[in-house]
Amino acid sequence: MADADAFRRYLADARARHLDELCAWLRIPSISTLPEHARDMAAAAAWAADQMRAVGLEHVAIMPTGGHPVVYGDWLHAPDRPTLLVYGHYDVQPADPLELWQSPPFSPEIRDGRLFARGASDDKGQIFMHLKAAEALRDLDGTPPINLKFIIEGEEECGSENLARYVAAEAGRLACDVAAVSDSPLLGPEVPSLCESLRGITTLELTLRTGVSDLHSGLYGGSAPNALHVLAELLASLHDDQGRVTVPGFYDAVRPLTPAERAAYAALPFDETGFRAEIGAPALTGEEGYTIVEQIWRRPTLELNGLWGGFQGTGTKTVIPCVAHAKISCRLVPDQDPEQIAELVAAHARRLCPPTATVEVGGQGGGHPALTPRDHPAMQAAARAMAIAYGREPVFAGMGGSIPVVPMLQRTLGAPVVLIGFGLNGEHFHAPNEFFTLSNFDRGLLTLCLFYEGLAGMSPGAR
Amino acid sequence: MADADAFRRYLADARARHLDELCAWLRIPSISTLPEHARDMAAAAAWAADQMRAVGLEHVAIMPTGGHPVVYGDWLHAPDRPTLLVYGHYDVQPADPLELWQSPPFSPEIRDGRLFARGASDDKGQIFMHLKAAEALRDLDGTPPINLKFIIEGEEECGSENLARYVAAEAGRLACDVAAVSDSPLLGPEVPSLCESLRGITTLELTLRTGVSDLHSGLYGGSAPNALHVLAELLASLHDDQGRVTVPGFYDAVRPLTPAERAAYAALPFDETGFRAEIGAPALTGEEGYTIVEQIWRRPTLELNGLWGGFQGTGTKTVIPCVAHAKISCRLVPDQDPEQIAELVAAHARRLCPPTATVEVGGQGGGHPALTPRDHPAMQAAARAMAIAYGREPVFAGMGGSIPVVPMLQRTLGAPVVLIGFGLNGEHFHAPNEFFTLSNFDRGLLTLCLFYEGLAGMSPGAR
Repeated sequence: MADADAFRRYLADARARHLDELCAWLRIPSISTLPEHARDMAAAAAWAADQMRAVGLEHVAIMPTGGHPVVYGDWLHAPDRPTLLVYGHYDVQPADPLELWQSPPFSPEIRDGRLFARGASDDKGQIFMHLKAAEALRDLDGTPPINLKFIIEGEEECGSENLARYVAAEAGRLACDVAAVSDSPLLGPEVPSLCESLRGITTLELTLRTGVSDLHSGLYGGSAPNALHVLAELLASLHDDQGRVTVPGFYDAVRPLTPAERAAYAALPFDETGFRAEIGAPALTGEEGYTIVEQIWRRPTLELNGLWGGFQGTGTKTVIPCVAHAKISCRLVPDQDPEQIAELVAAHARRLCPPTATVEVGGQGGGHPALTPRDHPAMQAAARAMAIAYGREPVFAGMGGSIPVVPMLQRTLGAPVVLIGFGLNGEHFHAPNEFFTLSNFDRGLLTLCLFYEGLAGMSPGAR
Repeated sequence: MADADAFRRYLADARARHLDELCAWLRIPSISTLPEHARDMAAAAAWAADQMRAVGLEHVAIMPTGGHPVVYGDWLHAPDRPTLLVYGHYDVQPADPLELWQSPPFSPEIRDGRLFARGASDDKGQIFMHLKAAEALRDLDGTPPINLKFIIEGEEECGSENLARYVAAEAGRLACDVAAVSDSPLLGPEVPSLCESLRGITTLELTLRTGVSDLHSGLYGGSAPNALHVLAELLASLHDDQGRVTVPGFYDAVRPLTPAERAAYAALPFDETGFRAEIGAPALTGEEGYTIVEQIWRRPTLELNGLWGGFQGTGTKTVIPCVAHAKISCRLVPDQDPEQIAELVAAHARRLCPPTATVEVGGQGGGHPALTPRDHPAMQAAARAMAIAYGREPVFAGMGGSIPVVPMLQRTLGAPVVLIGFGLNGEHFHAPNEFFTLSNFDRGLLTLCLFYEGLAGMSPGAR
């Protein structure tokens, strides 16, 4: 197999071609949410299929779904070697407001080592690197050292609604030992990192009613229940004074942090000053006994996203409101289950509801948390590759947000997902002037070549 | 002086003329809030002035204000006798939706002993009775037994903004020993009653901020403060579990209920079943240790009128809101001061605001509570008059709402206000098909004649 230096030489030679190819893809305005770009979506899918064929993948197919198609391709000629499923997406966010772009969003331009274009970082640039890694392995070794399956979807920016159905229906074809997703940022510009945990989410909406119509606060005030009071009291009681969620059973399934994890998190180059500045609050809050990193990556939350009832206009209206609403979401960590947590919160709200009111619970929905522990052989292979490409050991990070495709792949295919992203916060995903930092394109591409090679040594089935 | 029977005979003889006269006034659509009725407003004021002259009042004048004029008239020829100031208003509410009126709002019609017209009960019919009482006293006794001053304003239905300025500027001319306001309902159809207490009000608006922009609940949730949580906790702590307001000093100025008052309230024919049905809540709430009547008439409240922050649309938005709002009003009882209570609540909110947030307090405004105790000689005179006219002892009631003119007159002129209304809840004030129950017109008019006579025995200055 080729060594790192061989890859470096190869990738340096191929760089101009790689960027030309990527720019051709970036010129296609494949905005999945806008019907007027339907033809562009088809063109971007066709481009992906052509690339797959060009890098040597077989069984390339543009698979119809209820929405935009999924592009599939594989290379399955490494018996007794593990199979890697690579996920990415060819759709991009809308580009407006256009006037804020320094160069047009679909006319890629390199400035100061940055490739500016909608989709450069999220996600065409990153999934393109995987295709080029497969190509490099073929070109240098004659054949990839592992079995490869690619799925590149076209609906990530509008919720991936059809992908879950596609994966479930094609679970046999997509069977793999490990999946890789490159659609996330590094922890910092010079901080190679792998993401080992994502939080899940569960949502619900409470509607409190204390009567059938609002009442005059003079004529009834003092005896009539007020839905806003009931709601405020109910919501206030959902946390204790240590910042813990009071819902019985809420923490039962939470995987405790090990001393090793806590030590590793404490050693991370986490920019607490910057984090506090981004939040902009006079002081932070949170569950006592945990660091910020632990609070936002590995501890669950119960958050009020919206609250309303009664009179909101200018001036005063002396009304006793009979109905009040709250939107709640919980960020979940392994091994919490979204449906179960929603049920626990709903049951607790019903228990807390005083005799003066009734409570309705609706709006349930959610996604699972995900965890691929750092000691999994695939994570270790990724870490070794990254260490060589970046010249320093990567750190293991978490993400407080959710990437729904990750738990979906993990649960449907029963395979661990390596979240190996090369973007950077600050690269304006979803905003004007999106760019991809080309040093991470270079180092990331080398990382992927070495990662694929490293996976070759992993026993198939080491899940 | 004439006795009750003499008045009865006189009033029976004059009844048809009285109703004709009142109907002439009711035909003028004096809607103060609609500019297109400016000429009607002037006509209604002129009609009131003419009536004042017709019943023998002197110094009749249509006094300009910043808005619609106040009509003034007096009769001041009873030296060493008390002076009564009578207040009423000649403006009415808009009449729409017109299609819901059984007979046109400004074409008075008597059906089933009820006089239907906009303003029949609120307030032309009631202030007209005072004018007719003055006339009856002149006709029967040759002269009223007390000094009389009338002010009839034209802006009650749009906030009486200019009246307070007028009364303050003319406090000398309006000096009196007692004032009477007939712009309120009896406690029930067959329940003669006098209102001895009104609640005041103070309002404020809280704005909680935990940062400068909303945050992603995945990336920051767990460490970032949430303005909605802060607000819910702050608001929930404003009452204790006995339903008492926790603001320090809130109850300091509250006049305690005497055992006699509590006994009298307990004996009232208060329709608790109907009250509960109107509220429609599964259970009532309120300050422990007080009856409903005490809670709504004589105990202060702190009520949330509106509450909002974060996402209120359909679906979910996983946001940590940085700002939250609450509109609060307190119903006040004697001797609470609106400004002082607003200050206490604001100071308490500032104290409760945690280090994760800042709180702004705005929207202050309010009106004083009012109390004219039942043992005041003027109240006793009114009660005796009502007992004779209705054939049963009146009860002393309170009102949980506010009638701003009452504390304004009381405070500006330093005179007690007798709140002696003859309307009935259910007479559709401010709604289609407003009417005045003529049996109360008859008994009320007799009450007022006897009340004026009764006041004659009160020492001037018995405040």
